[in-house]
Amino acid sequence: MQTPVPGIEWIAVDWGTTHLRAWAVQGGTVLARAQSDDGMGRLGRDGFEPALSRLVGGWAAGPVTVVACGMVGSRQGWTEAPYVAVPCPPLPQGLTRAPTTLPDLNVHIIPGLKQTAPADVMRGEETQIAGFLALNPGWDGVLCHPGTHCKWAHVSAGEVVSFQTFMTGELFATLAGQTVLRHSVAASGWDEDGFAQGLDEGFSRPERLAARFFALRAEALLNDLSPQVARARLSGLLIGAELAAAKPYWLGQNVAVIGEGAVAGLYVRALAAHSVHATQAVGEAVTLAGLTAAWRRLKG
Amino acid sequence: MQTPVPGIEWIAVDWGTTHLRAWAVQGGTVLARAQSDDGMGRLGRDGFEPALSRLVGGWAAGPVTVVACGMVGSRQGWTEAPYVAVPCPPLPQGLTRAPTTLPDLNVHIIPGLKQTAPADVMRGEETQIAGFLALNPGWDGVLCHPGTHCKWAHVSAGEVVSFQTFMTGELFATLAGQTVLRHSVAASGWDEDGFAQGLDEGFSRPERLAARFFALRAEALLNDLSPQVARARLSGLLIGAELAAAKPYWLGQNVAVIGEGAVAGLYVRALAAHSVHATQAVGEAVTLAGLTAAWRRLKG
Repeated sequence: MQTPVPGIEWIAVDWGTTHLRAWAVQGGTVLARAQSDDGMGRLGRDGFEPALSRLVGGWAAGPVTVVACGMVGSRQGWTEAPYVAVPCPPLPQGLTRAPTTLPDLNVHIIPGLKQTAPADVMRGEETQIAGFLALNPGWDGVLCHPGTHCKWAHVSAGEVVSFQTFMTGELFATLAGQTVLRHSVAASGWDEDGFAQGLDEGFSRPERLAARFFALRAEALLNDLSPQVARARLSGLLIGAELAAAKPYWLGQNVAVIGEGAVAGLYVRALAAHSVHATQAVGEAVTLAGLTAAWRRLKG
Repeated sequence: MQTPVPGIEWIAVDWGTTHLRAWAVQGGTVLARAQSDDGMGRLGRDGFEPALSRLVGGWAAGPVTVVACGMVGSRQGWTEAPYVAVPCPPLPQGLTRAPTTLPDLNVHIIPGLKQTAPADVMRGEETQIAGFLALNPGWDGVLCHPGTHCKWAHVSAGEVVSFQTFMTGELFATLAGQTVLRHSVAASGWDEDGFAQGLDEGFSRPERLAARFFALRAEALLNDLSPQVARARLSGLLIGAELAAAKPYWLGQNVAVIGEGAVAGLYVRALAAHSVHATQAVGEAVTLAGLTAAWRRLKG
């Protein structure tokens, strides 16, 4: 059991494939936070309630409302919160109640969004979009959510009009860790010139990616290419090709990149190279703002 | 110890990352064959001689010459057979002798080829190129070697002029087996229309690959895309993008695809969609012809 949090009104939860993050909240003010590695990916259907109890049990003395977003609402999650089709507001009406055995735990899950053609899905980013709009009322433009599966969403008049997902983050991690490139690409370190060179190559000649990947290996063998430069160049190649494909999203648009730290910064710099000056918004702040918007609506 | 092979004159060996194949040969005629999973990837420096002994020890009664090609000659192999720079004949002068403890084993390794700019390397394919030229004297054109790392080589006047490697095969295996696509892509099965559709998309919009990969997952979730169709489409996307990048190699050229079975057939069909009618040559036959050419030169 965790230490009680005086004044707690509700609990915000961001529950993805690899992480579980929770905040004890009063209105929109965070009183306490906790996180664990109990992501959806490692939990069976019956593992969600115990995982949440371990993390936040004891925060509240009596019944408490929990609002959760992310993969927790997928078919492999706690309970399925069916996708809502775009165009629609990022928080369409109706959360899905998760089955619990503890009477004090009232868990509500935010549904993901789907797009029929081209087929696409999101879970979690819709909450960040809602949060970004809550923090920036009336905002129209394109939101970019870098990550394992980077999403570009066109937002207009309070609705998500369309979106597209790129497997860029997962491709980077898999190429660097699971292929022959693991011998030539460092696990950390950076080189900004290498990134810029990769960006340029990936953007202008995306068809060459599979050859440019192998060239990182060949350059390491023949020319002692540094593993840090190779890492930055690989990242640039992938993001460059993504920008080429996402051009209809960002060209001439108002763009905001959502996410903390290094990867979001890469997208901001990559867009700047194409004269797009994107705003960067902190991921945790917008996720919390989105969960808060869902909680306020639930409270009525 | 293996059964003696009467009439054996020498032993041909194709030793890659994941396989070890050996043939007992008299002149150019195969008398016996054997193979194991003792590829370079699982052997330490001291493991090569025992692995070869296990497979072919006893074939010859006395001293025997072994000619080997492939990753056995890499820096992580038995002994390094340094790369020779193109342009050069596929079998430049000079094999590298591998250190042995058994006096009867005379092992000679064929060097790989390298290209300075763009940086690239090959080990094994040079032997196939030599074999293809031995079987088709005076041939000029482009050889395509599908596989984990697909190579395109421009061959003219008996020399390898230039070449380029694409990580297509490894990308396919890694995407299908190690990423979120593993839930949506079958381990076997096929759909020719799905392949053709992927080819077309990959060729015409290669920048969209990372989005088209995720779309396979989304279509499985939303539209029950069959895992067999997803498999064929993924293959088509990757080969289509490769063909777009390799166009300077195949456009208006005499093309031969080297390799057995399904994957080589995919490249032949993909090229046919661009009105290039490639010859298909059996991988084992050209490898053996190349090893034989190296042995004849060694014999003097």
